[in-house]
Amino acid sequence: MYKKIQITRFDLRTGESKLEDRIIVESVLRIFINGSHFSSLVCTPSFVEELAVGNLFSEGFIEDSEEISSVRKSEEGTSVFVDLKKATDHSFADNEFIITSGCGRSSTASFDFEGEIKKNQTPGDVNPIFILSLFREFHEKSVLFSQTGGVHSAALCDENGIISFMDDIGRHNAVDKIIGRSLLQGEKGENKFLIFSGRISSEIFLKAHRFGVYMIASRSAPTDRSVDMAKASNIRLIGFARGQTLNLYN
Amino acid sequence: MYKKIQITRFDLRTGESKLEDRIIVESVLRIFINGSHFSSLVCTPSFVEELAVGNLFSEGFIEDSEEISSVRKSEEGTSVFVDLKKATDHSFADNEFIITSGCGRSSTASFDFEGEIKKNQTPGDVNPIFILSLFREFHEKSVLFSQTGGVHSAALCDENGIISFMDDIGRHNAVDKIIGRSLLQGEKGENKFLIFSGRISSEIFLKAHRFGVYMIASRSAPTDRSVDMAKASNIRLIGFARGQTLNLYN
Repeated sequence: MYKKIQITRFDLRTGESKLEDRIIVESVLRIFINGSHFSSLVCTPSFVEELAVGNLFSEGFIEDSEEISSVRKSEEGTSVFVDLKKATDHSFADNEFIITSGCGRSSTASFDFEGEIKKNQTPGDVNPIFILSLFREFHEKSVLFSQTGGVHSAALCDENGIISFMDDIGRHNAVDKIIGRSLLQGEKGENKFLIFSGRISSEIFLKAHRFGVYMIASRSAPTDRSVDMAKASNIRLIGFARGQTLNLYN
Repeated sequence: MYKKIQITRFDLRTGESKLEDRIIVESVLRIFINGSHFSSLVCTPSFVEELAVGNLFSEGFIEDSEEISSVRKSEEGTSVFVDLKKATDHSFADNEFIITSGCGRSSTASFDFEGEIKKNQTPGDVNPIFILSLFREFHEKSVLFSQTGGVHSAALCDENGIISFMDDIGRHNAVDKIIGRSLLQGEKGENKFLIFSGRISSEIFLKAHRFGVYMIASRSAPTDRSVDMAKASNIRLIGFARGQTLNLYN
């Protein structure tokens, strides 16, 4: 997940020093569906099976973990092989491009979002004391971030606390890992919510919405489109959850 | 660039209040080459001509602004039409997908980077006092960030200070806007350097390298691949430039 290198630090007060620093590893994950190369992601090389399954779900390629017959990773962890029960009749050859860190693709960045938004739930109550306490725990878990400063974190929560926690150099990947882990346990986001370190853009919103959570809370900012989508779908949207305060955007 | 909305803020010390908040606008820019739709970017709707030109350069579609015969934007600023002197014989129809904010594409995320790296310069001297003073100025310029908390900023600098400054919700777009502005002025990155708010991943590194700068400095972390690329190309790489300190990774 990280490696150690020798660097030079300049400090205006104390001058130059040599020290060992930890830097985050950027890796390429190749995802295969029924034996054919589907896509490649730039990611942090952890929980790669969860990432692959979450990505297939977020991108609309699967609806449910029931569609999956097996998931395994290569020995080095740089490829994940997902076998689906349904036959996939194309080789995905035209689909070959690398998805860079922090990147989604057209389906999640769709701009006719009206068709994708389901207004299916009553927004839950917001308990700021509870949410801010979860963010404190969230920060404590983010050891990788404090070691390297290079990743985003996401956690799935319910009324009892944090259920799962993931981090990745890609904002999108951290959310996809959360989704993939749930799906592999046969669960979706109903009655759960997501907390997140990064900006809530429309792509992130749509991933979480598709997964079915009733609230998304971030320590960072939402965009106007994610606010519009939150209002259209009755999903609670919280930004700038830091220290003693948070902002409720919907 | 931003819009004002009514939000509810919870503060554990003072309770709940209604206030007006500014949120960053997320927009879609459609880029046309010689009249055919080339791609769509999720971006902050400013300097869209610079963004389009910088993106075409970063993605390896053009080498130089000399190849461009005209650039114009639509009245609403949601489309940019780039006419090239060379004929483009395909309709780009297969190329139609939306590039989400923070996203590049395969060419910049190439993993056989040996072929792309030119080791063409002696690394310049690092003057930490000067660089940290530029970062202070950089932060002052980032009004949009302090208003909304939702964007990344990039600046092109030389030994005299900041030459140009751009921000965008997409890390990649902020750099592409910087590159596009230079190209439209007939210049490239030689004898200049880039300062940046976001993580330096391999995609960001390759954009800056292709543009020709001799140094990249960020207030955030580099990844291991960008450090490897910096060493291979003799480009100075600085991270965590904050307050009184900075780290030199190459």
